[in-house]
Amino acid sequence: MHENSATQTAAAWLGAFAKALETKDVGAATDLFLDDCYWRDLLAFTWNIKTLEGRASIHDMLVAALDSARPTGWRLTGEATSEDGLVEAWFSFETAAGRGEGCLRLRNGKCRTLFTALSDLKGFEEKAGTSRPIGVRHKADRARRTWSEERRREEDGLGRTHQPYCVVIGGGQGGIALGARLKQLGVPAIVLEKNARAGDSWRNRYRSLVLHDPVWYDHLPYIPFPDHWPVFTPKDKMGDWLEMYARVMELNYWTSSTCTKASYDANEKLWTVEVYRAGETVVLKPQHLVFATGAYGPPKMIPLPGADNFSGEILHSSQYTDGRRFGGKKVAVIGAASSGHDVSVDLWESGAEVTMIQRSPTTVVKSDTLMELAFEIYSEAAFARGTTTQKADMLVASTPFALMPEGQKKLYDHIRKRDAAFYERLASAGFALDFGEDETGLMMKAYRTGSGYYIDVGASELIIDGEIKVRSGVSIKSLTPRGILFDDGSELAADAIVCCTGYQSMHETVAQLVSRAVADKVGPCWGLGSGVRGDPGPWQGDPRNMWKPTAQEALWFHGGNLALSRFYSKYVALQIKARMEGTPTPVYGAPSNAV
Amino acid sequence: MHENSATQTAAAWLGAFAKALETKDVGAATDLFLDDCYWRDLLAFTWNIKTLEGRASIHDMLVAALDSARPTGWRLTGEATSEDGLVEAWFSFETAAGRGEGCLRLRNGKCRTLFTALSDLKGFEEKAGTSRPIGVRHKADRARRTWSEERRREEDGLGRTHQPYCVVIGGGQGGIALGARLKQLGVPAIVLEKNARAGDSWRNRYRSLVLHDPVWYDHLPYIPFPDHWPVFTPKDKMGDWLEMYARVMELNYWTSSTCTKASYDANEKLWTVEVYRAGETVVLKPQHLVFATGAYGPPKMIPLPGADNFSGEILHSSQYTDGRRFGGKKVAVIGAASSGHDVSVDLWESGAEVTMIQRSPTTVVKSDTLMELAFEIYSEAAFARGTTTQKADMLVASTPFALMPEGQKKLYDHIRKRDAAFYERLASAGFALDFGEDETGLMMKAYRTGSGYYIDVGASELIIDGEIKVRSGVSIKSLTPRGILFDDGSELAADAIVCCTGYQSMHETVAQLVSRAVADKVGPCWGLGSGVRGDPGPWQGDPRNMWKPTAQEALWFHGGNLALSRFYSKYVALQIKARMEGTPTPVYGAPSNAV
Repeated sequence: MHENSATQTAAAWLGAFAKALETKDVGAATDLFLDDCYWRDLLAFTWNIKTLEGRASIHDMLVAALDSARPTGWRLTGEATSEDGLVEAWFSFETAAGRGEGCLRLRNGKCRTLFTALSDLKGFEEKAGTSRPIGVRHKADRARRTWSEERRREEDGLGRTHQPYCVVIGGGQGGIALGARLKQLGVPAIVLEKNARAGDSWRNRYRSLVLHDPVWYDHLPYIPFPDHWPVFTPKDKMGDWLEMYARVMELNYWTSSTCTKASYDANEKLWTVEVYRAGETVVLKPQHLVFATGAYGPPKMIPLPGADNFSGEILHSSQYTDGRRFGGKKVAVIGAASSGHDVSVDLWESGAEVTMIQRSPTTVVKSDTLMELAFEIYSEAAFARGTTTQKADMLVASTPFALMPEGQKKLYDHIRKRDAAFYERLASAGFALDFGEDETGLMMKAYRTGSGYYIDVGASELIIDGEIKVRSGVSIKSLTPRGILFDDGSELAADAIVCCTGYQSMHETVAQLVSRAVADKVGPCWGLGSGVRGDPGPWQGDPRNMWKPTAQEALWFHGGNLALSRFYSKYVALQIKARMEGTPTPVYGAPSNAV
Repeated sequence: MHENSATQTAAAWLGAFAKALETKDVGAATDLFLDDCYWRDLLAFTWNIKTLEGRASIHDMLVAALDSARPTGWRLTGEATSEDGLVEAWFSFETAAGRGEGCLRLRNGKCRTLFTALSDLKGFEEKAGTSRPIGVRHKADRARRTWSEERRREEDGLGRTHQPYCVVIGGGQGGIALGARLKQLGVPAIVLEKNARAGDSWRNRYRSLVLHDPVWYDHLPYIPFPDHWPVFTPKDKMGDWLEMYARVMELNYWTSSTCTKASYDANEKLWTVEVYRAGETVVLKPQHLVFATGAYGPPKMIPLPGADNFSGEILHSSQYTDGRRFGGKKVAVIGAASSGHDVSVDLWESGAEVTMIQRSPTTVVKSDTLMELAFEIYSEAAFARGTTTQKADMLVASTPFALMPEGQKKLYDHIRKRDAAFYERLASAGFALDFGEDETGLMMKAYRTGSGYYIDVGASELIIDGEIKVRSGVSIKSLTPRGILFDDGSELAADAIVCCTGYQSMHETVAQLVSRAVADKVGPCWGLGSGVRGDPGPWQGDPRNMWKPTAQEALWFHGGNLALSRFYSKYVALQIKARMEGTPTPVYGAPSNAV
């Protein structure tokens, strides 16, 4: 074979690694790593979403997990590449329970980062392509149940005559993506959606909302958007796609169904989930419960002293759907991150007089700039050279969170130079800009705090032009009957106030539905423990609680933007399927927030 | 370049052909063809679906069409292949109006068959991939109309404040595929569906119906079925897919809307189409009218003397949806083609006592056999080697109908041997089998008469076992109060009769909605003019009236099975788009049935 030298290097390393693991020589295995090394594993070794950092951590994990993982069959799946002395190669392997794929990055012949991810469970592979179901037995059958009769039987019976193995609370993109993965793995599941129709989580948003992420980043699993789909999807079009998806993927999707209560019986290993549906309470008894209520938990309101005296309307951004009743009115928007900007534009388009109250600096990036520089692997050009959405997802997942800031800082240094004129004009308008405490920009903010950034799709120009006014770096002292009093003594007249003040952590939803005790045991979701304001340590390595076992048995969190919902839905579903089939799933690593 | 000798041969031929056309040397061009040659053109040269047969025909067409087509840019699009002395190569080219693709097959250096097909109209290319719409202008805009507001505006206004360019009568797979193509080409169109929901054309079929064609053959344009879709799609699942497709493809799809009348004003060049919708009559004024009411026209009933005396129920197969009321009853099924078999099985599964009355022999092929031998280019294996559905479609279209029987005869000689035991048992049960008048089997029957065949998905076994009785080669003399009297004097007791006696030609729908005169001017649809019973000459070369200009200006027919609906929808849409844009479309060749 016509191998390049990078491939030879990668093959040699992989061969040595395979041999060390086969002979259970943990020392030899860890010797193959640099001192400053990382191994990110999705389920294959750890049955967790876990990043081991440093050789000692890798050593400990192998000692604990090697016997049960029993990895074999390591082989490169293509040519390696080499850039700036870093050799990168993709490979496949097997474990006792399944098959996996991964990526190795070497420097000077030793491993800098290793990425391993479970792809399938042996014996429980998804049926697609050559193994797709036939659909019918070509045989006359007096006992035939047609597809529609089977579907109706399943829909009528599930939750009534037989219980689902898993219940997913939340029927937005997260619940839908997970529902689809569970369906394809044959896990009986019900997705609970409080709204009347699948897709309403998008339809109910404010009028002008369009996705800020480009289409190649947003595909759902199994059925990608067609080639003529717009780059940026309008909210209602997204709603329609989700609605048809839930239907043609044959999800057991309960609309107008709200979970009111859930409790876990640790002896029975069963959840009791109360659902308010069509005027009555239905009780479901799944073995697993997934919270997929959105990247964010319940709305967060800030204290507004004197709110009782305020004569106008006060609403949270989650309640804001239509700006038309604010035409000609003065509206104060508290908050200058994504929601604050979007709501301000929508209000301005409705003819309101808008003032944005900015309490802390925001990282702003122009949409075109982000698309070109940050989303390159999710693009038409990338697809043309063979980087499918699936490959791009794996590429992203193969980079440990600890190493992200370095690359992001370079990116944002570049962005700041490139759009310097834009940033100067924005700052001149009184807007407080930053690029994160350590200058690592928007994506790190998203993972660390989920807040404090805006992908500019039009608001910044209005701010620059003074069409949207900004009061920056002020604190609100109290509300007056007709407006807002700031701590510097100045006042702002306001007929209405929209609080774009964010959301609580998703675990507060657990507090509402399960109990405070369980919510506290599980702890907050998201964040990396980077130490920046809003993301206190200790360092987590991966987002808290997301897509992996939590401190509460059989309680899971799924969610994130469309890309994260798509990618990690696979791993949540595999973990649940493995448990359903009795596959041993020894979890390595303590759950998030463990005391 | 590392070309094989077949490629060299093909390139040499193509170069000579290009030169002859460029220099308008029609003689030199036709000299490049064998005496027994064929050129099948979809729009590019003829603005028609037309097969020229023999050098004289090709000569005449070039004389007429070369000046307006002005073809250039001929180049091979891959390596040529060679099998049994036949060199095959694919190529692309341009015309004055558009871009095209095609296939050449050479024997001894001269052309046996040439296939050319228009792919795009210059300046009116579909917007997809790198040219997909952005979806939003990243700019605050007080005059913004959101996507959903634009859609609603279009839906409310089309047919009311502004007229569609095209109306499609029929919202099944044909109307839907065509609607999607027209949408992607920017042709304002309304699809009229008489049923309450998109997909009802499938849902309303009898309970046990499953598609007889495998999934790779059935994809709709733009959004293929996902990889886990079953090989054979149950009717209700197909209905759901069509329903979501019409929605996410943003078709202007009017449900519960029946066309009652249509007339053409040749001066205004406008149709007046009356539509009964939601209790009122709406008048549409499109420039083009497409009949997509199904591969078949109105139901065909056979005369049944004494029907008034018959005490039981008589229904046509199109009215048959549920067999359960016939449980325990004696039912006579008249007809032994697809419907006759399917209805018989459904009745048997419902517990009826079924006798199939077979008036003429049927071509039966086992589903597995057909899948393996006849559908090979539409399969997982084909896809794996790069034969996408699109490529398979082009491959099929590149074979002139005149040459199909030869290959089909070989195929059916093989099938008869392979399943000899099966056919013997079927014949022993009294079933009358044939393989077509010239032994060319099922597919030729489909194109020639649309009848007389059955893809066995279970009925034959019941016939063999005597579970479904067969009376073969008999004629019905009359009905009696309790059954059927045959011309040989025998009687059959029957509580009900289902006439699976086929359908009239689609042009009878034109007679119902437009006028007898126009229907007669246009003439029947389908059939090849092969001269076999049911398909009288003269030889047509391509199916009558389908997908091309008819004898009635601005009246079109679209339809066929899912594969034909998918493939030819593109060419119908291109013809309509070209007319909308004022592109010259000089049609070469008389319309079908021209006097």
